[in-house]
Parts: sequence; structure tokens; C-alpha cells
Amino acid sequence: MNMKETKRPLILITNDDGYQAKGINELIKSLWGVGELVVFAPDGPRSGMSSAITSLIPIKYKLIRQEEGLKVYSCTGTPVDCVKLAINEVLEREPDLLVSGINHGGNMAICVNYSGTMGATAEGCIFGIPSIGLSLLDHQPDADFRETCRLGRTVIDYVLEKGLPHGTYLNLNVPVGEHIPGIKLCHQADGRWIKEFKRSEDGNGKPVYWLTGEFRNDDTHPDNDMLALDNGYASLVPCKLDVTDYDLLSEMRKTFNPNL
Amino acid sequence: MNMKETKRPLILITNDDGYQAKGINELIKSLWGVGELVVFAPDGPRSGMSSAITSLIPIKYKLIRQEEGLKVYSCTGTPVDCVKLAINEVLEREPDLLVSGINHGGNMAICVNYSGTMGATAEGCIFGIPSIGLSLLDHQPDADFRETCRLGRTVIDYVLEKGLPHGTYLNLNVPVGEHIPGIKLCHQADGRWIKEFKRSEDGNGKPVYWLTGEFRNDDTHPDNDMLALDNGYASLVPCKLDVTDYDLLSEMRKTFNPNL
Repeated sequence: MNMKETKRPLILITNDDGYQAKGINELIKSLWGVGELVVFAPDGPRSGMSSAITSLIPIKYKLIRQEEGLKVYSCTGTPVDCVKLAINEVLEREPDLLVSGINHGGNMAICVNYSGTMGATAEGCIFGIPSIGLSLLDHQPDADFRETCRLGRTVIDYVLEKGLPHGTYLNLNVPVGEHIPGIKLCHQADGRWIKEFKRSEDGNGKPVYWLTGEFRNDDTHPDNDMLALDNGYASLVPCKLDVTDYDLLSEMRKTFNPNL
Repeated sequence: MNMKETKRPLILITNDDGYQAKGINELIKSLWGVGELVVFAPDGPRSGMSSAITSLIPIKYKLIRQEEGLKVYSCTGTPVDCVKLAINEVLEREPDLLVSGINHGGNMAICVNYSGTMGATAEGCIFGIPSIGLSLLDHQPDADFRETCRLGRTVIDYVLEKGLPHGTYLNLNVPVGEHIPGIKLCHQADGRWIKEFKRSEDGNGKPVYWLTGEFRNDDTHPDNDMLALDNGYASLVPCKLDVTDYDLLSEMRKTFNPNL
């Protein structure tokens, strides 16, 4: 008899908005009973932390809440620190699934590169855990996460049943709306942020710069995630840890390693 | 007459160890005269910052040093903030090249995901600038960067002549040694860090966790960068911004978008 098969899945939940954010708490409610839930999330906002790790100072964690089927821990580190610390030091077994989010704000296109939500998702994937990032295109603290929970659950059920290939994780983004018509499989839109700073002054009249900006979508292919979201669909992008450009590798080898 | 062609290339230099580190200063010396050099780097160590951006507080910069062919600025932000602020607000024209480093410590395999050096390199690529990250596998403040400068120059000359494809940047790692036999074109090794924390105590006897760990290379393919470095070669990995897993996209579309 395989003991593991008799257990409910262990689901590690994290985010980059902190354990008190509405998005992660709505996610917890929507996954109630699907498995053993362990929340291990930052103790405050960590938006835009990407895959940052804390190496110069130590990190700490504490148990915030415990009841049947749920433990909630808060951690002083980044989203990636949370995943590393939970798996290395806290959880009794490897999680069967990692879910990061639900983020207050979208993580489509190149935002996957900057997002703490997606940094934590990639980190789960590095550990070999099927990992999904969930984001709603609404930054409001009291945003309505119902459609994101519903669509996220579809993706979570798919992954719990089928798993994910080694080295691949998922990025689901959901637009604002009460009846999202469906999930479109997409690639990451090719575009970037422009006009990225607002110049202001500190108390002494010296210039300071606040990050802001607008996104410019340069992608004309119909399968890009920005377009799907603009059209009212949720977008699902499968993402790889291996960023190697194998085409350029072959090309440059002719110059640098002509005998290989 | 094209004015731009008469100008020397504008080279933006940054790092994640701070503008005072030996690695970036050796890089500056090695690029002296190759172009107009603008250094825009953090005011202190930012290792492990990945592509983190600063959104909750403002950032500042100041001019530290100026002479013919060189300006050095320090910035309170992350490596990615440095690239964004330099290009959006400070530089008079788009750089022709971005070089990040030379990092004190290797950024091979999955380290590309956590590295501030490589976060800044990817950011240059997002702006459409040919971008190269340089790292030496030696964390010592007084490390010997001569071989890294020599090999880095080979890659820089290649890129200044041929450019790089849209959305691709380069990651050069150099092992310790006085005579590195050459640069091998590689893919990012498939492996991960294990035993990642050292438990210790704070002043009150409460547990704290310091990031540490050892790298486990799970990659058996002969073209992985860890192996090249272990064999005494420098490794060069071309990296893509687009992390989409197109194979899984096609596969999952059958479930989620059967009519597309």
C-alpha cells in the first residue's frame, strides 16, 4: 500500500502581497478541502521582487494561524525566500502543488520577469513541484477575486491530475469582469514598459524618482497574452526555467567553437 | 551623413556589487577607449536581487566621477532600477551596448534566475540594447579579473560587430585560473541549490535562517555550463527574455481551447 496515495495533496500557497492580502485569503477559501493547505507568505508587501533572495541578512518566520487542514506562516523574506524556507526547513514533506497569488495586479507579458508572484512560482518549479501563479488585473485591496478563483481552480484541477513537465510552470492572468468567457493558452507578449519614472522632490528639494510607466505591446501575433486579456479572456502562459537561446547557441558556436 | 556612425559606441556599465567593487572597476579599465563609458550602478551590494524593481519608495542617483570618456553614477536602487533610470532619465541617447559586472561570483545554471548582474543584463535586452553579463567564479573582493576582462572583451567585440537577436542577451562565466583555454557555448545547466539554510539564533535566542547551500548539477548533457566551468573553460550561454514553453502551450490548448 502506498501511503502517499492515501494522503490529500499538500498545497503550498504563497504570494508577494503578504499573508494579510485579500487575494491570498480568497485563494485559501477557494481551495478549502482540496488538500492540506500550508500558507508561507511574506509578512508584508513584496511586489516587484522578482526572484530576489535575501543573502546579507538572516530571515525569520512565525506561525500565525493553525486549524484542521490549514497552517499560515508569515516570513520576513522575499517570495522566493518563503518557498525556499518552507520546503527546506518547515514542511514535513514535499508539496504536491504550489500556488502563488492571487496577485493584486496583472503579471502578463514581460511582467513575469519582475513579479514576486511569478518569482515564487518559478521557485516551486525549481524544486520540481508543479507550480501555478495566479493574478487578477486589479490592484485594489478589495478587488473581486471570484472569477480568478473559479478559473484558477480549473487550472489547479488540471495540474493536480496531469502534472507539469519538468522545468515548466504556469502563469494565469485574469481580467476584471463578472463573467470571463474562458482561458486562452498564450505566449508571453513581446513588449515593454515606457515612461517609467515620475520625477518628484524629497524634503530637501532634491530630485527623487518613483517607478510608474505604461506598457507598450509590440507583439502582433494573435496568441499573445496581452491581446487575450484586452479581449476579455483569461490568459494562461506555460513558462520555462531554461532561458537558453538554443538557436543563437548553435550560431555563435561557429565563431567561438568551430571544431565542436 | 549619419551622425551616429561617427560617434564612438555608448556603453552602459552596471553591476550588482556596487560601483566601488573591484570587478566593475577592472571592467571599466579594460573597456577604456572602446567607447563612451557611462557607469550607472548601485551604491552598495545588491547581490541576489534578480530583476527586482523598487516600487514602494523613490530612488535617487548622483554623479560620482567624470572625466573624458567616462561618467560614473551611483544609485540607491536595484540593478534593474539602475538600467531603467539611466536609460529613461539620464543618458542622452540609447546605449549601443550594456555590460553588467564583472560579478564577484558565478552566475551559471539556475543562478541566472537569482542574479542581480543578470537581472540588469536582461533589462538592457528589454530595452533592445545588446547586453552581456560577465561573472568570475570568485567571491573575493580582491579577485583577479584579468582573464575575465580578456575573454569578456572577445564577446564584447563580437557583439559590437554583429549585434544580438531581438530578445536575447549573453551570460559569460569565467572560472578561476591564469590561462583559461577558451569560451564554450553552452546551455544553462539543469540543477538546483540544496541544503539552503544555516539555522542560527538572534540576540534573544530566537531562530534565524541564513541563506547558504550547495549546487547540485542534475544535467547529464555535455553542453551544460557547469560542466564547461568544471573543466576549466569559460561558459557562454545565450539567454532569451521569452520564457514561454511553446510545446506545452500546444499540448494544453487541446484541453482548454479545443476549437482553436
